[in-house]
Amino acid sequence: MRLVVPVSGSDPKTRLSPVLTSDERRDFTEAMLADVLTALRAADHSPEVVATAPVDCDAPVTVDERGLDSLVNDLLGETDGELAVVMADLPLLGRSSVERLFEPDADVVLAPGLGGGTNAFVCRHPDFRVDYHGASVRDHRHIAREAGATVAEVDSRRLATDIDEPSDLAEVLLHSDGAAADWLRDGGFELLADDGRVTVERA
Amino acid sequence: MRLVVPVSGSDPKTRLSPVLTSDERRDFTEAMLADVLTALRAADHSPEVVATAPVDCDAPVTVDERGLDSLVNDLLGETDGELAVVMADLPLLGRSSVERLFEPDADVVLAPGLGGGTNAFVCRHPDFRVDYHGASVRDHRHIAREAGATVAEVDSRRLATDIDEPSDLAEVLLHSDGAAADWLRDGGFELLADDGRVTVERA
Repeated sequence: MRLVVPVSGSDPKTRLSPVLTSDERRDFTEAMLADVLTALRAADHSPEVVATAPVDCDAPVTVDERGLDSLVNDLLGETDGELAVVMADLPLLGRSSVERLFEPDADVVLAPGLGGGTNAFVCRHPDFRVDYHGASVRDHRHIAREAGATVAEVDSRRLATDIDEPSDLAEVLLHSDGAAADWLRDGGFELLADDGRVTVERA
Repeated sequence: MRLVVPVSGSDPKTRLSPVLTSDERRDFTEAMLADVLTALRAADHSPEVVATAPVDCDAPVTVDERGLDSLVNDLLGETDGELAVVMADLPLLGRSSVERLFEPDADVVLAPGLGGGTNAFVCRHPDFRVDYHGASVRDHRHIAREAGATVAEVDSRRLATDIDEPSDLAEVLLHSDGAAADWLRDGGFELLADDGRVTVERA
């Protein structure tokens, strides 16, 4: 099965702008991508990267400027619906969370992200298509069922934790020792604990 | 093994004050507790509730005004470290996430919460103790290892999703059809999707 990791290569992770410059956001994106590729390979997959602009990584890269929906839906068409897609901003991924994504015996396996996104899916059905806008995991459940596909969801915190906002950076420092965590530590980020959830501060 | 669900009965969930009145926070807390108790029973456990003030629920309740650390550490002492603790604000819990908490063959099994908390643990070691302040999951890893206990962590989004802040309410509407989700829907809460993570609005 083809496994594609889409990544934004041009101006990625704009919601991290309050804490990272444009160059830093590109570097951090590549560090997160490296973690995702390492996890996928550890689970014996051969990921391909599709980026909107060139990115530096240890996998075959295709540059494709289309939006995510057109890109993934064309790939679903080309592969007759035998496709896995894993987002590039999941630096908490490890071998076992990847294995769990491929475990359920269902036509469509969804990995929900925090806030209603779809951080990864495995498709084994010709008629499933994606729509990443809004509460996409809800829409993907619906699209899959309308297509007559069986659906399973993976209950994984590591697959759910996409890094979009400054507060998400704490999850990387708390739960990873990969490239993205190293990059943050080298950049002076530290955990800041008070009464609520832990956040980060930059030295 | 004793399984205790601690819950704040007096002025719970103050971080939800921007969207819920004091009475509503108490009602919503009881709805979340009902979901947690249902999930624990579905996995064949017999939970006990320990509340800082009387709460209405379908389980034996002990009222104990002590703080969480003293309470849980005394219970760990009384039970010679054979104890499970599951927080009351995890309305996404289901039977399978509870089963996964008890699965690992380790002296201490931790279920990290978003933002560094410890949403549940299973202890089978006499010397483990808790310290819930700050990034508690990091401290609990450390305390367990210092005690010579083996440690495992459960990778579960459902166990990780404690409901503390208004934005967390979206997770309940997205991923549950239990008592807490019903309570929110009856209270007029709906999902609001725009470009980032899904949030809620009240009709």
